[in-house]
Amino acid sequence: MSTCVFCDIVAGDGPAEIVYADDRTLAFLPLYPAAVGHTLLVPRAHVRDLWELSESEAHHLASALVKLAPALRHALSPDGLNVVNSAGAAATQTVFHLHVHLVPRWYGDSFGPLWPDPAARLPAGDERQGRAAEAIRRELAD
Amino acid sequence: MSTCVFCDIVAGDGPAEIVYADDRTLAFLPLYPAAVGHTLLVPRAHVRDLWELSESEAHHLASALVKLAPALRHALSPDGLNVVNSAGAAATQTVFHLHVHLVPRWYGDSFGPLWPDPAARLPAGDERQGRAAEAIRRELAD
Repeated sequence: MSTCVFCDIVAGDGPAEIVYADDRTLAFLPLYPAAVGHTLLVPRAHVRDLWELSESEAHHLASALVKLAPALRHALSPDGLNVVNSAGAAATQTVFHLHVHLVPRWYGDSFGPLWPDPAARLPAGDERQGRAAEAIRRELAD
Repeated sequence: MSTCVFCDIVAGDGPAEIVYADDRTLAFLPLYPAAVGHTLLVPRAHVRDLWELSESEAHHLASALVKLAPALRHALSPDGLNVVNSAGAAATQTVFHLHVHLVPRWYGDSFGPLWPDPAARLPAGDERQGRAAEAIRRELAD
C-alpha cells in the first residue's frame, strides 16, 4: 500500500468499483458519492493537481472523458452532468491525486445549487475583473 | 450577430474581456463572475455540450486548460481553483455553447459549499452505485 488511496486503487490494492481503464487513466466510483453514478476519472500516474498536469496527461484524461460522459448518459439517463475538478483544499480537494468528478444530475436532485447565490456574485463591469484579465493576459504573454 | 452569445464573442461581435486565444479555443471573463478571475474557456466551433464534443476538440480544450490554470494561479495567487463544466440545464448550463469554467478560490470566499451536505450523499456501499457501475461498464463495453 502506498500513502495515496488513489494510487492504491490504480495498483489494484484498494477496493473500488472500476468502470473504465486504459493505459494512462482509470475511472471508478467514489466511496461517498454525491449522486448515483458519481464517477472519478484519474491519471494512473500520481499527479497532485491540475497545476502539475502535463499536456500529454491532460489529453489522455480528455479522451477518457469524452468516452465516459456519453456512457454515463446512456447508462443512467440523467437530465444533466457536471464535470468538476478541484485543485487545492480551498477548492474542496481532499485527495491529492488529481481526479475529475463526473456527477450525473437530475431535476430536483439533492446536489445543491453548485454556484453562489446571485447576490454573492461580482456585479457586471466590476473593475476587479478588468484588473484580473490584465494580470492573466500578462502571465500568458510571458 | 448569431443566436449564440458565445459564437458572437468568438466572432468578435460581442463585448468580452478576452484573456486567451488560439486557433481552436478562446477564453474570456463572464459578465456575472462567481469570483475575481472567473474565466470561461470555449471551443471556437459551436459545440452544444460535452456530449457533442469530439475527442479532437477535447484535446484542444485540454491544451488550453493546462496553460490557463497556471496563468490564473500566477496572476491572482488564489488558494485553489475549481474547473467546472455543466452539460444540460439540470446541471446549471444556461448558454448552450460548451464552456469550461475556471473559478479561482480563496479560503473563506463566498462561493458556497459546491458539494452537497454530507447528509445528502449516498451511504458507502449503497447498492444503487453497484448497479450504476454495472450499467456504465456495459455501455463502455458496447
